Amino acid sequence: MSLIVKKFGGSSVSDASGIIRVAGIIADDYSEGHDLVVVLSAQGDTTDDLIEKAAEINPFPSRREMDMLLSTGEQASAALMAMALERLGLPVVSLSGRQAGIRTSAEYGSARIEKIDCERIRGELDKRRIVVVAGFQGTARNGDITTLGRGGSDTTAVALAAVLRASLCQKYTDEDGIYTADPRKVPGARRLSEITYDEMMELASLGAQVLHNRSVQMAKRCGVELEVLTSFERKPGTIVKEVTSVEKIKISGVAKDTNTARIAVMGLRDEPGIAFRVFRVLSDARIVVDIILQSIGRGGTKDISFTVARSDLDAAVASLETQRGALGFSELDVSADVAKVSIVGAGMMSASGIATMMFEALCDAKVNINMISTSEIKISVLVDERDADRAVAAIHRKFFEDEG
Amino acid sequence: MSLIVKKFGGSSVSDASGIIRVAGIIADDYSEGHDLVVVLSAQGDTTDDLIEKAAEINPFPSRREMDMLLSTGEQASAALMAMALERLGLPVVSLSGRQAGIRTSAEYGSARIEKIDCERIRGELDKRRIVVVAGFQGTARNGDITTLGRGGSDTTAVALAAVLRASLCQKYTDEDGIYTADPRKVPGARRLSEITYDEMMELASLGAQVLHNRSVQMAKRCGVELEVLTSFERKPGTIVKEVTSVEKIKISGVAKDTNTARIAVMGLRDEPGIAFRVFRVLSDARIVVDIILQSIGRGGTKDISFTVARSDLDAAVASLETQRGALGFSELDVSADVAKVSIVGAGMMSASGIATMMFEALCDAKVNINMISTSEIKISVLVDERDADRAVAAIHRKFFEDEG
Repeated sequence: MSLIVKKFGGSSVSDASGIIRVAGIIADDYSEGHDLVVVLSAQGDTTDDLIEKAAEINPFPSRREMDMLLSTGEQASAALMAMALERLGLPVVSLSGRQAGIRTSAEYGSARIEKIDCERIRGELDKRRIVVVAGFQGTARNGDITTLGRGGSDTTAVALAAVLRASLCQKYTDEDGIYTADPRKVPGARRLSEITYDEMMELASLGAQVLHNRSVQMAKRCGVELEVLTSFERKPGTIVKEVTSVEKIKISGVAKDTNTARIAVMGLRDEPGIAFRVFRVLSDARIVVDIILQSIGRGGTKDISFTVARSDLDAAVASLETQRGALGFSELDVSADVAKVSIVGAGMMSASGIATMMFEALCDAKVNINMISTSEIKISVLVDERDADRAVAAIHRKFFEDEG
Repeated sequence: MSLIVKKFGGSSVSDASGIIRVAGIIADDYSEGHDLVVVLSAQGDTTDDLIEKAAEINPFPSRREMDMLLSTGEQASAALMAMALERLGLPVVSLSGRQAGIRTSAEYGSARIEKIDCERIRGELDKRRIVVVAGFQGTARNGDITTLGRGGSDTTAVALAAVLRASLCQKYTDEDGIYTADPRKVPGARRLSEITYDEMMELASLGAQVLHNRSVQMAKRCGVELEVLTSFERKPGTIVKEVTSVEKIKISGVAKDTNTARIAVMGLRDEPGIAFRVFRVLSDARIVVDIILQSIGRGGTKDISFTVARSDLDAAVASLETQRGALGFSELDVSADVAKVSIVGAGMMSASGIATMMFEALCDAKVNINMISTSEIKISVLVDERDADRAVAAIHRKFFEDEG
């Protein structure tokens, strides 16, 4: 039988009943003869509780000690899961990141996996044991514990699937798969049976928080087939892979991202290199810019507008203000009440009129478009935040529900 | 300056304010120029909380997974202490048992330290860093995490002091040292400035819960000087070492142990080997017997009385009852309402009349003695539990308060 890596998030194992429920899923798959490696996050709010505990003692702890502290969360949930599987009479062993052989860079708090020494895991699998691995962690060359940063447990799962040549890496979530739009907002949203890595990444960056881009990127690079599925029902989810074939729809989903803000730098001198100088200020401040719009110069001046993550807004404004003299702009116009609405689809590349259909839907819904950005598999528009849900619904209707 | 190992228990670091208070003590010693290795237990109720969490999932988890779970408690408190010291601007690093090089046997839950590879600790000390070590844990040869069982963090501290050749191993507790009797019960109790390892062990086994015998034994074997002191005041505590010289008092303390119960096996045949057969039944059941009293045979039968830990009483009775036919006794007389009162002192060996003084004190206090047991440095009597505090007070008065 085949080797499957299964990853469960913190909400799936937040309490004893969650752990026991997940143990049941694992037991079923084990009884079908699969070799299983299970990757776990920390239970529910454990990580937040630990961060709070640290903050009481030191508001600015070193990342090294933070990793030492936080890594206990995943270790504990791995041990508890192993106990739940023991109770079902199954052979099992829990492993910390170090014991699983996960060697990382020494960038505490955001380490990269450098290599995985699978000897211990392979030995345990050879004994037909279920291997439960603490996600999100590894050790640096000097033996220090590191954590992998955001989406870390997903990264652990995909990396293990890659080096162990697993046939599948399953990520269990509260959702039962990837949808054409947020099913809580858009009643007609449809679940996809397949999606490509690239589409998944575009959707993830747009706020579909199901799979972190870092893990999808790694899955794509290593050719690991992913499945996003729910731990609350026993049914297939959405497969993420290189090429999808089953569904011939042109776009795979509509997504909304409200973690965005718009800055307009007004009255810049209309001279060569001005855009470069503006964006260097931002990149020096480590601020990632998303959609960019530059007005046609008029009367010797021009405006440059762009979006940043809402959490970066203050820092972006501050860094521009400190360079006001050098950049020579007249004013900054800022709005945080905006949202990015996007359609994603690999099919878009070979189809024409997709953008037109999208704009038509927005026109029909009387949604004003502030900015537009396009890539090979994505079209994004910036709209007022209050219009965003209406925009998503209108676009979804146009592409998925009117088809008949 | 010298190297000091400091060990703080769970109650000293149970919350943020405790951790910050302890960090202050460490900072003071560091500023005096000492090299410091700090060993920590898990915070307050953490271990109990983890045990409870496990019990919800599996009432009989394997010891291996239990160790994986429990070891997170000490790792977290070590990291939090390091953060507190960082906040004071001190160079510090926290280490798990594995990172500290503590290699143990593979007896999960009660592992023995086999060797300590001090390379990492020495390297950190050479950089003038304070090294905070998670107590109670190590790793077995296969890389699995083990815990050291009862008194484990004390054992970690003494073992590190031994291999690092520390000048002193300080154990911080809620008490400010070792007393001639329980100061909460006996108002005249005096704090000792020094005590021998042997005296300390006798006192510890009698319920003075300050230092676990295992760590005192190891300290004696390795010649590590111990100090028991409080973390609530900055003052010297009691030094535990091989030979004490300062105080020439004959006994060092009076202690009470209520975790005891008496069993009398009545009407045994008065024949050779009968005592052996009775106690083999108990040792087969892994029950430790303490004081033993055998009556003179009379009319062809005799009685054997002994004490066991109160928690072993039911098991002791059950194992004897199953062998009633083979042993041929007439009845078991059982009492759990007893207490052992003991005086301990290395000076006893070279002084006469100590037992007489003790019995005189009990006689004056009208306390009935049920059983008597003596060793080179200890005299114990079994009394009714209701008389125990009165007995301790009377003995203490006789030896410590009447002197002046």
